[in-house]
Amino acid sequence: MKITLAQLNYHPGNFELNTHKMLDAIAQAKNEGAELIVFAELAICGYPAKDLLDFDAFINQANEAVLKIAEACDSIAAIVGAPVFNTSEKGKRLFNAAIVIEQQKVTHTVHKKLLPTYDIFDEYRYFEPATNCNIVVIKGTKIALTICEDLWNLDDVSLYQSSPMEQLILQQPELIINIAASPYSNTQQATRLRVIQRNAIQYKLPVVYVNQIGAQTDLIFDGGSFIMNANGQQIAQLNVFKEDIQSFEFNKNGFLAKNTNSLNENLLNEMGQIEQALVLGIKDYFHKLQFKKAIIGLSGGIDSALVLYLAVEALGKENVLAVLLPSKYSSEHSITDAMALVNTLQVKHHLISIQAQINAIDKSLHPYFNDTPFGIAEENIQSRSRAILLMALSNKFGYILLNTSNKSELAVGYGTLYGDMCGGLSVIGDLYKTVVYDLCRYINRNVPIIPENILSKAPSAELRPNQKDSDSLPPYEVLDAVLKCYIEASMGKNAIIQQGFEPALVERILKMVNANEWKRWQAPPVLRITPKAFGTGRKMPIEGIYSV
Amino acid sequence: MKITLAQLNYHPGNFELNTHKMLDAIAQAKNEGAELIVFAELAICGYPAKDLLDFDAFINQANEAVLKIAEACDSIAAIVGAPVFNTSEKGKRLFNAAIVIEQQKVTHTVHKKLLPTYDIFDEYRYFEPATNCNIVVIKGTKIALTICEDLWNLDDVSLYQSSPMEQLILQQPELIINIAASPYSNTQQATRLRVIQRNAIQYKLPVVYVNQIGAQTDLIFDGGSFIMNANGQQIAQLNVFKEDIQSFEFNKNGFLAKNTNSLNENLLNEMGQIEQALVLGIKDYFHKLQFKKAIIGLSGGIDSALVLYLAVEALGKENVLAVLLPSKYSSEHSITDAMALVNTLQVKHHLISIQAQINAIDKSLHPYFNDTPFGIAEENIQSRSRAILLMALSNKFGYILLNTSNKSELAVGYGTLYGDMCGGLSVIGDLYKTVVYDLCRYINRNVPIIPENILSKAPSAELRPNQKDSDSLPPYEVLDAVLKCYIEASMGKNAIIQQGFEPALVERILKMVNANEWKRWQAPPVLRITPKAFGTGRKMPIEGIYSV
Repeated sequence: MKITLAQLNYHPGNFELNTHKMLDAIAQAKNEGAELIVFAELAICGYPAKDLLDFDAFINQANEAVLKIAEACDSIAAIVGAPVFNTSEKGKRLFNAAIVIEQQKVTHTVHKKLLPTYDIFDEYRYFEPATNCNIVVIKGTKIALTICEDLWNLDDVSLYQSSPMEQLILQQPELIINIAASPYSNTQQATRLRVIQRNAIQYKLPVVYVNQIGAQTDLIFDGGSFIMNANGQQIAQLNVFKEDIQSFEFNKNGFLAKNTNSLNENLLNEMGQIEQALVLGIKDYFHKLQFKKAIIGLSGGIDSALVLYLAVEALGKENVLAVLLPSKYSSEHSITDAMALVNTLQVKHHLISIQAQINAIDKSLHPYFNDTPFGIAEENIQSRSRAILLMALSNKFGYILLNTSNKSELAVGYGTLYGDMCGGLSVIGDLYKTVVYDLCRYINRNVPIIPENILSKAPSAELRPNQKDSDSLPPYEVLDAVLKCYIEASMGKNAIIQQGFEPALVERILKMVNANEWKRWQAPPVLRITPKAFGTGRKMPIEGIYSV
Repeated sequence: MKITLAQLNYHPGNFELNTHKMLDAIAQAKNEGAELIVFAELAICGYPAKDLLDFDAFINQANEAVLKIAEACDSIAAIVGAPVFNTSEKGKRLFNAAIVIEQQKVTHTVHKKLLPTYDIFDEYRYFEPATNCNIVVIKGTKIALTICEDLWNLDDVSLYQSSPMEQLILQQPELIINIAASPYSNTQQATRLRVIQRNAIQYKLPVVYVNQIGAQTDLIFDGGSFIMNANGQQIAQLNVFKEDIQSFEFNKNGFLAKNTNSLNENLLNEMGQIEQALVLGIKDYFHKLQFKKAIIGLSGGIDSALVLYLAVEALGKENVLAVLLPSKYSSEHSITDAMALVNTLQVKHHLISIQAQINAIDKSLHPYFNDTPFGIAEENIQSRSRAILLMALSNKFGYILLNTSNKSELAVGYGTLYGDMCGGLSVIGDLYKTVVYDLCRYINRNVPIIPENILSKAPSAELRPNQKDSDSLPPYEVLDAVLKCYIEASMGKNAIIQQGFEPALVERILKMVNANEWKRWQAPPVLRITPKAFGTGRKMPIEGIYSV
């Protein structure tokens, strides 16, 4: 049986587009003589569809779209991810389903049993877990059809009471198919291969793994669908961060191993992955919101330089506007460094001084501020004055402002709410400052693109004379290491100190993180590239007086 | 057995404060000769503790706090809500537990079985459901000890496969105790009574219901704990929106009915409830974040007038600063109406023109804007100029800016991001514009407080000459009715049209709501007073092209 893996980029709720893409893939698969085509989890409606799932009309639309797909499946069978109503009187109103279509009819509907409800996942919000697990027979092949998390309940991460495969294996399937919506993080590709490999080896079955690709606001799905044989050997690797449709012959001996040299061609090293993930994140945000043009405030520092580069990669230089917004505290090199990058990337730029606006504000506030010393208020006025101008250009000409905050500063609150925290999308809000440097160096690996002076000068917000980040923050190497323990590993104060960090410093950093939850509540969506990003996957009280 | 209901205001993660409050309540209960004191769900750590629950150190702190409570329970028994580790190798790492303490020892630990995971609830994110349900015997009384949702699985809302009471009733309990963390909404008090009454009648058992009070950022818990007899008759009603500790005698005949006339004294009509809810919401936000002073931009319109009134109620007039920020488009009555309210409420005020700042911005942008017509960009510049000044005063003097957006404008995006959408807390973001009027009239029921002219003039953003809300929005009566169907009832387009609304209008309104998800992503926390508020309880894709 020839099986086609259809790794597509779905738009949540855009049934017309999703159906269209799926029909095209079916046509291609038929052309290649495939007998079965496999789409990703909840392909028909896009993942995550969030509370759209609460609307009856939405589920009905999904059902109609499935029927349209079915019409095209004459010679070919299909597996389609879709939400379906739970017709029992008990439990949640929906199931997360894999629908099997043969001869233009729905022949099986398999329900997902393990519903991830942690980090960015909240599937139990919508879905009832499957009560029974049965294999399906498609064109004579007995298939353990599973949905994403269904394969993830291995012994050492036993988050659920039982695993669907424990039941399914008793029915002697010949093949595991797993349809997934598994988002990218910098550890996920390796984890995914390991998990699927353990299933293959434990159950002595080949596995077809089909993931979606595409960014849905903050979540970036990398695709990277693959095939593994019963011995855990990877046979095929689809593209990462790109749509891909490929067909493979399956018989009683499993899948024929292709030249394994080509397997890794589609894979990237960590910095390469992050770069592609962020570019896709920007591209899809604009595409799916139906915008074309981005505006970026270019400070001369490394963060905005990186975001400008990524925006150009994603949208094309003709769709990106850089705006330099100096104040009297901006250093000479801020302008020259920013202009060097503008020239290298050949993007349009404006240079607008914010000083007149700041003078007007200072004058209006003088009756109240009097002769109080220069402080946070005055610093924030500068940052917010820049935001007003950027947003005005955005509103007038239809640009979307890209935010340039990094994860380190978001963590400790080293940024101005309604100032440099503005933007429709936070591009590098899940990159610690040290990773920002790593990524820039990676980008410069062959040809210098980010000016060397931006990489080598000491980071500064330039909101007061001779300011340096290091005036108020620990060195980024230490800060980032502590933050990673706290945010990504949920390690408490004592556990972090036991790693060898100075107790007072750890305490200070954790306090800064906790004290700035209220700011992050209002931050833009952050493109997620680590297992724990700020945003939907991390929910902390903003008002608790806590120390963990 | 004398039972004390301890309805307290807990701070998430502040174990010291929570323990202190609970020990005080135990002392009072012992004083009153009580034999059992009952605290709310997850009392020890506060509800919701969110991802603090992911930290081992947090669970250990909770455990230590429980042991401190136990020390004080010599003559008295106690029921304490707390998170506990799941010691099995399978399932989520925690249980949501009710811990029974007798003679200074933990004698039983009951796990919650039904874990709400919808709207603002996400308990399955953290907790494993109970596998077994057994009654507990405290001082000879057989008690069906349940935790909040455990009593909510009645036939007509059968969200779960089975109900704990089905098992518990077989063990012949004499009393149901339910410890809860049930947030306020304008329909919740009636629903709660009905649900508990159905349990009382169905199982022929009296019920002790103990809720927490206090606001946790966006969620307002109203308390309103009560006792019901086996016939469903309510025997006692604790205070709403206030801490309250009361003791009641229970014997084999149930609870002795007190004078039922006094029962309703503690209850309020809907507008009275909403007023108290919002006042508590503001008060606790400031108190738990350790702030004292609020700043409000006072436009002369009804929204900011209402927020100013509520802030004064919550924080005291000495802690509230009103700032009038007129531009050349502000009408004469905006100043006079605002000043009338300032004088009535006797709050401090500043009057700062934004015109000089706007002129400076216009000049800076002129090379780019040239002679393009006045539009959204110019309107937003005004709104954002006000925000800069408000935030500057906030940063300089330690005020928290209160946001004044209402639910109708948040819904359709009739507000400026980083402008009038600024603020640490959205006070009336869950009140439709029509409800804003209702509440103001309620506040004025005895003495006119909100100036009549503010109530009678046509609403306007005053961002261009002679602007009226009705220029770009449908009448609020129609808009709000449609929004309520869409947001609170999850009714799709066709279902709403079938209610008799004009199809084109419904389509237009729904499109406006969908198109503004990206703005709401960055809105402040909204005090929740309806069953479906913007914020944590409503998660919609911001980039889907959808129509439901």
